[in-house]
Amino acid sequence: MSGPTLEEAQQLIADARAQALALGKALSIAVVDYGGYLVALERMNGARPMTPSIALAKAYSAAVMQRPTAMLKNWSSSDPVFFSQVARMGHQPIVATLGGYTLKRDGEILGGVGVSGGSPEEDQAVCESVIAAAGFATDFPAWAGAKQEANGRG
Amino acid sequence: MSGPTLEEAQQLIADARAQALALGKALSIAVVDYGGYLVALERMNGARPMTPSIALAKAYSAAVMQRPTAMLKNWSSSDPVFFSQVARMGHQPIVATLGGYTLKRDGEILGGVGVSGGSPEEDQAVCESVIAAAGFATDFPAWAGAKQEANGRG
Amino acid sequence: MSGPTLEEAQQLIADARAQALALGKALSIAVVDYGGYLVALERMNGARPMTPSIALAKAYSAAVMQRPTAMLKNWSSSDPVFFSQVARMGHQPIVATLGGYTLKRDGEILGGVGVSGGSPEEDQAVCESVIAAAGFATDFPAWAGAKQEANGRG
Amino acid sequence: MSGPTLEEAQQLIADARAQALALGKALSIAVVDYGGYLVALERMNGARPMTPSIALAKAYSAAVMQRPTAMLKNWSSSDPVFFSQVARMGHQPIVATLGGYTLKRDGEILGGVGVSGGSPEEDQAVCESVIAAAGFATDFPAWAGAKQEANGRG
Repeated sequence: MSGPTLEEAQQLIADARAQALALGKALSIAVVDYGGYLVALERMNGARPMTPSIALAKAYSAAVMQRPTAMLKNWSSSDPVFFSQVARMGHQPIVATLGGYTLKRDGEILGGVGVSGGSPEEDQAVCESVIAAAGFATDFPAWAGAKQEANGRG
Repeated sequence: MSGPTLEEAQQLIADARAQALALGKALSIAVVDYGGYLVALERMNGARPMTPSIALAKAYSAAVMQRPTAMLKNWSSSDPVFFSQVARMGHQPIVATLGGYTLKRDGEILGGVGVSGGSPEEDQAVCESVIAAAGFATDFPAWAGAKQEANGRG
Repeated sequence: MSGPTLEEAQQLIADARAQALALGKALSIAVVDYGGYLVALERMNGARPMTPSIALAKAYSAAVMQRPTAMLKNWSSSDPVFFSQVARMGHQPIVATLGGYTLKRDGEILGGVGVSGGSPEEDQAVCESVIAAAGFATDFPAWAGAKQEANGRG
Repeated sequence: MSGPTLEEAQQLIADARAQALALGKALSIAVVDYGGYLVALERMNGARPMTPSIALAKAYSAAVMQRPTAMLKNWSSSDPVFFSQVARMGHQPIVATLGGYTLKRDGEILGGVGVSGGSPEEDQAVCESVIAAAGFATDFPAWAGAKQEANGRG
């Protein structure tokens, strides 16, 4: 098994949509498999045209880096030139921001989910909520790519 | 109105999925708005990793060229160098193949739908069926870009 | 309706040109539709060769981000790596600067206008003036993408 | 003088628009300067979203190659690999097709005009008509880039 089923992806998206409606925000939600390839994506009515691409980049990053995207922020800020180079090595941009979460279960990486269209904090909260509701893991080892001297900054 | 609603996109996708199950094929289906930006996308269990990108390119092409993608084939085959250049001018590749259909209603272009994963003929049949079921227009003027000498090639 | 008519675009451009003449500046002015595709563009005699591309990028950004470009500045300055990545996801660069304005009417996004060639403040003043004269909306919710800690920077 | 004035560009566009209306076609028309930078562009109501980019590429090609784009077709078909490489060396694609015309007066290259949205023959006819009406030159030496063996083909 190298990804969430379509039904699991649809459930994640339906949960995220319900929360977005409660927040009064129009979001795009993307779910990708282990390799970062789309399983399902939805843009809610009123969400901006670029939000599907941003949600996909977040889901992709969380899948292929095997960490929630928020955990990449220290690396991005401490070593922006190298990060930017790595960020272009895949078939989607790798982004270090709030709102992307890895799908991990029983120690296995299954893919990622990305949310775009709210504030960074809202995107992140929606991610964390749907991940928890679906029973995916939330424990990830710290990202070693961040420079030592940057550890105190974040 | 600059695109189908999410509900319209979901209906197109659900119809396509039902037909794919009847065919015994695993498909990806993409729906985009007037400008070619995603509204919704699904990859059925078992569909290949590249099928979402191909479905998106088909939907994009049908939206921004404002013709079903099959109508671009004469142009692509008769003038491949120029076609390839135009095909890179947008934010997705423009493809000339079966399986992409323009969403047009009351004379207005609303977007496009793209299907990938079956044979070209299956992808096209699914497109045509969901377009007809949803009541979108199926009349489009012939594509003028094909070279005269290519008209007999089919 | 998925964009301004050519006549509306021409009126915006004629108004901008009149103001540029009053200012004694040579400007380029671009108008795009909902999806960021050009409707009309003019470069006044004496305007620099890159000003059409800059005006187009401003108009594009205001259309697809659905905010005046000035409202993206906090995001760009507070999270430059992520902003730069999103800025490459479309078919024109997304820019966070003065001089791009969203075309919104009756709550619907119709496109964008961009001005380049004057000082940033002049480009912005021309934008705001032509938007107001044409009766487009000027109320936009604050951009949520800017990091909290950047809010004081202005 | 390294380009047409804005007034000359506007006149070319107005002439092209009048002819498009007579043909019943919705066209995009682009005018560029000596260096291939936009002077003015218009997309008529109903013209497809990609037509501005295609018209610009035609105008660009006619300006920087200093030949009507139709004169590049032999080169493109006889040496497609090299042509494709050269075609990516500029800041717009260089295209070898009907519908782009060089602006030359008194032996001096001033820029180019490009038309997109009709059949290739219609785009070309509109180009030739507006060039003639504005008094630009129509004599150009044959393009030497085409391979000898291809001369009999075109």
